[in-house]
Amino acid sequence: MLTQNKKQIDWKPIIKKFEAALGKNGVVKTREELITYECDGLTSYRQRPALVVLPRTTEQVAAAVKICNQYSVPFIARGSGTGLSGGALPSEDSVLIVTSLMRQILKIDLENQQAIVQPGVINSWVTQAVSGAGFYYAPDPSSQIICSIGGNIAENSGGVHCLKYGVTTNHVLGLKLVLPDGEIVDVGGQIPETPGYDLTGVFVGSEGTLGIATEITLRILKSAESICVLLADFTSVEAAAASVSDIISAGIIPGGMEMMDNISINAVEDVVATNCYPRDATAILLVEIDGLEVEVAVNKQRIAEICLKNGARNITTANDLETRLKLWKGRKAAFAAAGHLSPDYYVQDGVIPRTQLPYVLQEIESLSQKYGYTIANVFHAGDGNLHPLILFDNSVSGELEKVEELGGEILKLCVKVGGSISGEHGIGADKKCYMPDMFSEADLETMQWVRQVFNPQGLANPGKIFPTPRTCGEAANAANIKQFAGVEKF
Amino acid sequence: MLTQNKKQIDWKPIIKKFEAALGKNGVVKTREELITYECDGLTSYRQRPALVVLPRTTEQVAAAVKICNQYSVPFIARGSGTGLSGGALPSEDSVLIVTSLMRQILKIDLENQQAIVQPGVINSWVTQAVSGAGFYYAPDPSSQIICSIGGNIAENSGGVHCLKYGVTTNHVLGLKLVLPDGEIVDVGGQIPETPGYDLTGVFVGSEGTLGIATEITLRILKSAESICVLLADFTSVEAAAASVSDIISAGIIPGGMEMMDNISINAVEDVVATNCYPRDATAILLVEIDGLEVEVAVNKQRIAEICLKNGARNITTANDLETRLKLWKGRKAAFAAAGHLSPDYYVQDGVIPRTQLPYVLQEIESLSQKYGYTIANVFHAGDGNLHPLILFDNSVSGELEKVEELGGEILKLCVKVGGSISGEHGIGADKKCYMPDMFSEADLETMQWVRQVFNPQGLANPGKIFPTPRTCGEAANAANIKQFAGVEKF
Repeated sequence: MLTQNKKQIDWKPIIKKFEAALGKNGVVKTREELITYECDGLTSYRQRPALVVLPRTTEQVAAAVKICNQYSVPFIARGSGTGLSGGALPSEDSVLIVTSLMRQILKIDLENQQAIVQPGVINSWVTQAVSGAGFYYAPDPSSQIICSIGGNIAENSGGVHCLKYGVTTNHVLGLKLVLPDGEIVDVGGQIPETPGYDLTGVFVGSEGTLGIATEITLRILKSAESICVLLADFTSVEAAAASVSDIISAGIIPGGMEMMDNISINAVEDVVATNCYPRDATAILLVEIDGLEVEVAVNKQRIAEICLKNGARNITTANDLETRLKLWKGRKAAFAAAGHLSPDYYVQDGVIPRTQLPYVLQEIESLSQKYGYTIANVFHAGDGNLHPLILFDNSVSGELEKVEELGGEILKLCVKVGGSISGEHGIGADKKCYMPDMFSEADLETMQWVRQVFNPQGLANPGKIFPTPRTCGEAANAANIKQFAGVEKF
Repeated sequence: MLTQNKKQIDWKPIIKKFEAALGKNGVVKTREELITYECDGLTSYRQRPALVVLPRTTEQVAAAVKICNQYSVPFIARGSGTGLSGGALPSEDSVLIVTSLMRQILKIDLENQQAIVQPGVINSWVTQAVSGAGFYYAPDPSSQIICSIGGNIAENSGGVHCLKYGVTTNHVLGLKLVLPDGEIVDVGGQIPETPGYDLTGVFVGSEGTLGIATEITLRILKSAESICVLLADFTSVEAAAASVSDIISAGIIPGGMEMMDNISINAVEDVVATNCYPRDATAILLVEIDGLEVEVAVNKQRIAEICLKNGARNITTANDLETRLKLWKGRKAAFAAAGHLSPDYYVQDGVIPRTQLPYVLQEIESLSQKYGYTIANVFHAGDGNLHPLILFDNSVSGELEKVEELGGEILKLCVKVGGSISGEHGIGADKKCYMPDMFSEADLETMQWVRQVFNPQGLANPGKIFPTPRTCGEAANAANIKQFAGVEKF
């Protein structure tokens, strides 16, 4: 019924407008070319957009958004499309505004430790551009050699070094934005705290629902004088988790502190053969210590002692770049290696208070047995950001649904112990159904006030972050479905 | 005309409602008692509130806000009333909701490094409550022994240690809020980053215009192993400023880095006689270095070398608590000491990029000469947060207006060099006229969308942050005044 009644959009005049505003090269419209844009890193959700447009400037982004407004078609911003929560998933009859032609680093100001970049700039390019002068950009998602700064802003991305240095929002000073109605505004500025409401903070992590960032002022940091990587191996998860807690309790905040379990260790040794990770260890900790040379030396010693006290079997440390990279190699390859263990894997992203690590890992193990799927654990232990990898075979009908259910159980577990349903991947299309597990109706309504006021027509990335009855399976009740359909139709 | 037409509010039924909700002791209504609440730390603006109410719980705050809504009377939240921008200035016929009976520390969780407090809790009490276990709360405004956490949230307060540790917003994990319509919601949580829009970030620094925080989850930090204070004295401001830049450029972020000029030095030596600050120095730098003992030792050496290279005459350092406090004593007493130099002083709060320090201080000197007022400079040099103290005599008619004009010139100078009109005191009633110097009309409008959606009736702290034609002297034009009066009347 719904489909039959749906108004057919006449795309011809819309395409003409886009071509006039962005040039013919700025509009992708053939079915074949559009396939690429059906999904982002969350490949289990797919929807082909009606059009893809490729602006080069703030003004072109504003023009594209205005055309979408004129024809009331939804638009979704997309960077490199590496997001894992479906934040850049197109909706039906939508226009994808892709920033891959906006890849200029507009300004580097070393004296004031900042850089202004376009949203399509690749994360690692920022560090590359300033490393010669001894600086770097701290947030480092695993996908950093391909993901875009704009996408990082949308999802408030994290990474290994976020334990000490914070996630993306802590490194964004100001933004030039195209709002959902096409207006161009500036929020924040060139200094860390500007007066008035912190709209920069609201925008970072808003997953494209409040507009599109077209110029981003990033904070860059001075590189540490010295870096050391320490690998400790344990025969129990509890001992590794206790070491993490004790390191933080001792007042040490390492640059990064990662944990891998036995399944992950063996997966990476099978695939990339670091020959550094003991295959019989129940868990390993990888700790990066940065700072002054003397500071690193003292902290290395203290961390080693804490790990040994908690029962670590061996401690390996690396100061030179080559050995450090070797120690990190397995961790960096962990997701890819999991892909070799089974035809498919589902990566979850949840946060728990650090003190709950042993309990939560035990519960995940119980869930793994209950559902009958192997789960590999690779995660940012220091900040309690878990990434369980559920191994399965997507070609078997019904498996994905079961795995998603298991993933949901893990998220509920995170919330139960006082944590969160997302650490760094965002909510997107994937996790919106779990928002009510974490927030009350009033809390969610308050957030949606903000969405409503910025995005009153609902054209900017619809169907993301906030649960809707239809998509969350809550509306078994026919009355609800009817009401929702009604709202959409008229 | 306006006054004659104004509707008289019948306060009797309103008082009855408040007394029923908060008890008779929870309502202050006599003229004599209300005098205390006429102004906050910005004493040049005064307005007696109609009533003061003193809730003890979240529910009582919500009840008070709902009564205000029922009778459409404005309400203003107030903590200790130490704010310097008039953020807690009552408006006419308003109710002040004072949090001074909400002074409980509700929970301390050392393992997860957080504390939950009521808004009336005094800033320094948080550190006192956790210091025995080796922790502290980082934001430390000068008024920390009297100002409240709720007020700190409202103004996003800073302090000496914010160079390294960030301002209030970096230390708030979650909030229980009473929204302007009396609804109770939770934003943020017990972990650093929660999904959805960052409403915690928007609320911190919103100066009471988006509601009232009634439970605040603060991040507490582990105390540093070692602290050292270094005093360097200079014969030129340029040399002191160059040292600040060079220290940061060397990759050192001291716990705090303060500068005082010759006028301030002599004022504090006259009043508190530290006998540490050389009276003939043009400027002194006070640098606090914290961290591991070895780290502090190395950084002390490096900072001393940088200062000497830039022409410092002497370097004094203190490691023990007593001598450290002695070195800080003058800085902490600087504002009070300025009060001894002249009958009154006006303290300004602006931010500039660190690299502009020498130029801006020279320009302030020119403005001082042009207007004929002495200006003492005491400020957070590390983060470019200036606090020029303009010395004057408020009993001389017309002086305050001239001083405010001079203060405005200093703010415009800050904006001109890429800085901000407020570093840590907020905008309040005092600086709203300068917001258009810093933000475009579209930028300000976007912020006001947020205000509008949270505070549609405009009852929560009206007349703060955003400029209005009437109060900003922009409406020399009679038509404008008429229009504004009309909006207010009907």
